[in-house]
Amino acid sequence: MKISVLGPEGTFSHEAALIYSKSAQFLFENTIYDVFDALYSGKSDAAIVPLENFISGSVGESLDALLEFNLKVNKVLFLDVQHNLIGHAKNDIKKLYVHPQAHAQCREYIRKNFQSAEIVHTSSNAASARLANESFEGAIVPLLAAQVYGKKVIDENVQDNGQNVTLFAVLGKSHAKKSRDDRTFIVFDCVNRAGILHEILGLFAKAGINLFKIESRPNKRKMGDYIFYVEFHGHPEDEIVSDVIDELKKKTRFLKILGAYPAGGSE
Amino acid sequence: MKISVLGPEGTFSHEAALIYSKSAQFLFENTIYDVFDALYSGKSDAAIVPLENFISGSVGESLDALLEFNLKVNKVLFLDVQHNLIGHAKNDIKKLYVHPQAHAQCREYIRKNFQSAEIVHTSSNAASARLANESFEGAIVPLLAAQVYGKKVIDENVQDNGQNVTLFAVLGKSHAKKSRDDRTFIVFDCVNRAGILHEILGLFAKAGINLFKIESRPNKRKMGDYIFYVEFHGHPEDEIVSDVIDELKKKTRFLKILGAYPAGGSE
Repeated sequence: MKISVLGPEGTFSHEAALIYSKSAQFLFENTIYDVFDALYSGKSDAAIVPLENFISGSVGESLDALLEFNLKVNKVLFLDVQHNLIGHAKNDIKKLYVHPQAHAQCREYIRKNFQSAEIVHTSSNAASARLANESFEGAIVPLLAAQVYGKKVIDENVQDNGQNVTLFAVLGKSHAKKSRDDRTFIVFDCVNRAGILHEILGLFAKAGINLFKIESRPNKRKMGDYIFYVEFHGHPEDEIVSDVIDELKKKTRFLKILGAYPAGGSE
Repeated sequence: MKISVLGPEGTFSHEAALIYSKSAQFLFENTIYDVFDALYSGKSDAAIVPLENFISGSVGESLDALLEFNLKVNKVLFLDVQHNLIGHAKNDIKKLYVHPQAHAQCREYIRKNFQSAEIVHTSSNAASARLANESFEGAIVPLLAAQVYGKKVIDENVQDNGQNVTLFAVLGKSHAKKSRDDRTFIVFDCVNRAGILHEILGLFAKAGINLFKIESRPNKRKMGDYIFYVEFHGHPEDEIVSDVIDELKKKTRFLKILGAYPAGGSE
């Protein structure tokens, strides 16, 4: 089995892919769009992309690509985002390599421990691991990056928040079959007037369907207009859900089901 | 006047800061949190942070910091995001430096023109400009980065989408005074049950207040719970707005006004 993943090797996307499969062959791509494209064009059998991080929020590129490609989310994976310090000895580090997002997530730790060190921002967590080679150099990296690039972890779990989770989507040609407890993810576009979103959410409220996520994003075709991404409880095969979707279609200009998947994700 | 800005020099944040003021002294910080902190602790008189990009979406770190710091958005700036190719001659480029986000935004251009070149991801658009020094090297950068680092632009406006805009927030100790046409930005937390968001949006609908943006984000204190960021038409001094905010406070666990500012932004 071939799975398309955002590269390079040793990033959190790679960690998520290993949760999904230990035996698959991973094809690493340069951009999220290229990950979608690889699956769509038949280079791979599945694709894994980041959807949302607990701290940094939704991944816009993934939301856009879901809108554009005829691919569906059929499973979600939750990954604990844990940063680690690699190097020789903590007190000897004069130069610290860190990805800007990892810097934001380990800001207090870096401020406290590396006040006089030179901080060098990198293009990816994998690059941080690759670059720290001299005895006076250190880096903040995922555990997998330390392993892939053969580096020694000298301090574990150095992120400021105890818990940080990234939600990844597994993509395929169709959404998952109905299970005991599902979620459905849709996107729609409606006219821009006071009260329209209230009317639309009223359909869910009347049906007693709980919403988990709602997010507006600029409609690229028309500045000032928004499209809405909504994740809710249930599966498109549930009668109550398919009825609401039918009603929604009457109130929106377009509506697309982006996926359906078991609620719990997978460890 | 001192203004805190996300560094390094020559990025789009720096371009936005120059829209706001040509004469201010800019203090460049490593992370968005540090930009907030610099203003809060009195190192600067104002701060400018990215809030939302047309393509990549909201900037989670800014939304989080707005929640945490007692600072207010008092103005918004719209910046046209334009990428440019620097180097000697387009056909001679064997190595192309590009920030991952710039890569995503210029994907087609890079695919078409640099099929056999080595693509090197960098930590910032400024780093891309700094690194491209050899005659066989090129980079994709903002115009300002080309100027700051003394590089020659050989192809202009190379982004795939004709238009891409980033919205920046100007922060101060208080929100802006009421003007002719304002927007207000709030965040609130409500209990997680079917219909609650519908009830809350009903308050805006009943008052005829148009919503521009709504976004849920994970509540970091409680997994599975969400907080909501909403931008709407009007100013907290408008009676109709202050009435809705009073009603909202009864239905939410907490509510904070993040800012109020003229609707049109500034060029």
